[in-house]
Amino acid sequence: MAVNATEAKRLKEYIAKGWEFHIIEMLHDLKPVEIAELIEALDEESRAKLFRLLDVSTASEVISELSSDSREDVLDDISDSDLAKIVEDMDSDDAADLVADLKHERAERVLAAISPKESSEIRSLLRYPEDTAGGIMQSEIMAVPSTTSVDAVITQIRQKASEIDNIHTIFVTDNNSRLVGSVPLVKLILAKPETPISQIMDLDPLKVPVTMDQEDVARLFKKYDTVVMPVVDKDNRLLGRITVDDIVDVIDEEAEEDMFMLAGADEDILSSSILKNASARIPWLFVCWVGEALNSVLIKGFEPTLSKLVGLAAFMPMILGMGGNVGSQSVALIVRGIATGRVTQRYFLNIIAKQVGVGALMGVVYGLMLGLISMVMYPDYRKMAFVVTLSIFNSMTLAALVGTVLPILFFKLGKDPAVASGPFMSSVMDLIGVIAYFSIATWL
Amino acid sequence: MAVNATEAKRLKEYIAKGWEFHIIEMLHDLKPVEIAELIEALDEESRAKLFRLLDVSTASEVISELSSDSREDVLDDISDSDLAKIVEDMDSDDAADLVADLKHERAERVLAAISPKESSEIRSLLRYPEDTAGGIMQSEIMAVPSTTSVDAVITQIRQKASEIDNIHTIFVTDNNSRLVGSVPLVKLILAKPETPISQIMDLDPLKVPVTMDQEDVARLFKKYDTVVMPVVDKDNRLLGRITVDDIVDVIDEEAEEDMFMLAGADEDILSSSILKNASARIPWLFVCWVGEALNSVLIKGFEPTLSKLVGLAAFMPMILGMGGNVGSQSVALIVRGIATGRVTQRYFLNIIAKQVGVGALMGVVYGLMLGLISMVMYPDYRKMAFVVTLSIFNSMTLAALVGTVLPILFFKLGKDPAVASGPFMSSVMDLIGVIAYFSIATWL
Repeated sequence: MAVNATEAKRLKEYIAKGWEFHIIEMLHDLKPVEIAELIEALDEESRAKLFRLLDVSTASEVISELSSDSREDVLDDISDSDLAKIVEDMDSDDAADLVADLKHERAERVLAAISPKESSEIRSLLRYPEDTAGGIMQSEIMAVPSTTSVDAVITQIRQKASEIDNIHTIFVTDNNSRLVGSVPLVKLILAKPETPISQIMDLDPLKVPVTMDQEDVARLFKKYDTVVMPVVDKDNRLLGRITVDDIVDVIDEEAEEDMFMLAGADEDILSSSILKNASARIPWLFVCWVGEALNSVLIKGFEPTLSKLVGLAAFMPMILGMGGNVGSQSVALIVRGIATGRVTQRYFLNIIAKQVGVGALMGVVYGLMLGLISMVMYPDYRKMAFVVTLSIFNSMTLAALVGTVLPILFFKLGKDPAVASGPFMSSVMDLIGVIAYFSIATWL
Repeated sequence: MAVNATEAKRLKEYIAKGWEFHIIEMLHDLKPVEIAELIEALDEESRAKLFRLLDVSTASEVISELSSDSREDVLDDISDSDLAKIVEDMDSDDAADLVADLKHERAERVLAAISPKESSEIRSLLRYPEDTAGGIMQSEIMAVPSTTSVDAVITQIRQKASEIDNIHTIFVTDNNSRLVGSVPLVKLILAKPETPISQIMDLDPLKVPVTMDQEDVARLFKKYDTVVMPVVDKDNRLLGRITVDDIVDVIDEEAEEDMFMLAGADEDILSSSILKNASARIPWLFVCWVGEALNSVLIKGFEPTLSKLVGLAAFMPMILGMGGNVGSQSVALIVRGIATGRVTQRYFLNIIAKQVGVGALMGVVYGLMLGLISMVMYPDYRKMAFVVTLSIFNSMTLAALVGTVLPILFFKLGKDPAVASGPFMSSVMDLIGVIAYFSIATWL
């Protein structure tokens, strides 16, 4: 089923030899996503060659599965009129995504070359922000007036089946195109042919407003375990539908966003240039840099203490490192807990108290262990063992507190709790660690 | 649609006053998942009270939507015979999950009280590991022999429609229950009643082996944009089906796993005790502790250098902090890139080279900035500016290298690349940072 290395190798051979017949036969048994996989494995020139061998309807499906790199290779090589044919054959949401990626002039040429109905559909989809319901919906839907009989609906499905993939649900509208109901296919099968659709439809169906954020749309899909949702405007007029396969992509995207936020990066970072890469990451690291610069000034202030016992420096990375790690553990736990709803308003105090307890308990364990090592390393200076034990206990407990409270705080302020992670957290932890360590050392 | 605070408050009032009629009327308009949300908002006692007011079919849907906390509250309170009725009404996959959570004796009592067919279905589902296709599939399927006519299939759907939710696809089997084809509902609608199903079925349908890891199953759903997949044994016999709503949960779970691996924790950590919490996190932190202890010994070795210039200690957290942050950025990028397939075999060297370039470029920027600060803080010791500039450049470049290579290496060795993140990474980075810093300082 999946494309394997042997197949890819064989294909490269055929392309090198120009055996088009063999290539076409080989592609015949593959699904579009598998052809896309093969294309990814080829070099720039062969990609274009292979793509030109596809028929329009296959090409239109393959192109939406390609990475932006290969897509560019392929698009550079085909004529505007061929591209127009492909765009016309695509689902409207995929077509809009493709057109949005084209250079302005080419996009206009392509839109001018396809049917006015299709091009106006694509233009209107392009108007919605990318990460809203409007940005991910498609215009192809099965919608019928509520007076239609089951029999007539089936006739309409017959006419539209080639145009609309994956019909799961028929939407029912009133005279003003307002959504009034929905009928899952299975109900249609079970009903008598002459029944009016209004008698078997679900009233008050689930639906999403066109302006809703895609993350909220995904949450509704998850909550109601549904495979398709109609999209409506503010007057409840039916505009399109969102299918679950697009939602799966949204969920992936959002998980990636959370993860990349930890790294202060965005999704395109892997494919962009070194300079762009660096400029995207520099602001994130700047927060860290400022914190650490402050730290350097602080440590300089403790120079008298340090000069008395240079050995204090030896344990500094340990005090900071253990604090930092506990802190980022706590942040990850809480950020994820909030995202999945496991950390709820009701339990905040409870959770904070528990996490601090965990930090303190681990602080005792690791503090005592380092105390022992200190006694071996600095046998002449017994007080050092006290200092490190107390400091680790202290930095781990505080780190657990800060790492738990910060994301909850951000969440309560209506910000993404994941902001609390990353450099901000590490800088705060390092500052706390250094102050605590040297205060204890001075005091002893 | 969604449950709001007012509704929850009103419900609490009704429960306090014992107005059962009002409660039942209120619940009547809600979907199971919304009732579950309301239950979550109640205290222990009211949860049980509310749950007892539900009819069996609603209760069986509500219970699969509850968190493990509320589920326990509710289950503690109902009789074995009521529970048996509920289990009997649940989808087999949800029923198996519920039974797996019960104490052994209670599970046996419940299984004994339901129909032998259902209980043997549940027992066989319990045999599959939780995170495989078998662990997430349900036994309720529409399967017909290939000789059945479209008409006869529709009659069968009519009989089974109440028992099976969300029929999307009819599976077709041969005499030995082996999967030979599948028919999407829409094709059934469009075919003539007397057509044998074998004429309209898709041959060689997508399917997953019962032993396949759930993450791989999810990947297939994403790849082929499908809403349901049949599950087969090694002889291609049809065992059950997996629907996309369960896949959405799997994707969420796996993203969580990645994130929690960064924190060395598992999903139950938020709800377990302080001691359990600490013991789960201690091994993860131990890796860090060992690394840092090694670091302390190293720094002690550099004491002569440190005594000459105590100020060197002031910039240590900066050198380590910047390295650590660049390193964890890189790890997050690569781990995610591998998970989404954006980082592929073919590009490994390319990606490594680029990331090192990014690290070096950022190292120059931040190194020079700290050099300036050093000249202000230690005007008498110009060499210090050199040392810090070079050290930051050095630690950021190396961190980018290590943070990129480690996850790729783990991936190539067949391990989860996320293992590279967390304490292992931070300890390696700290060690590299300290050695580089003091080597440069000694040398100058």
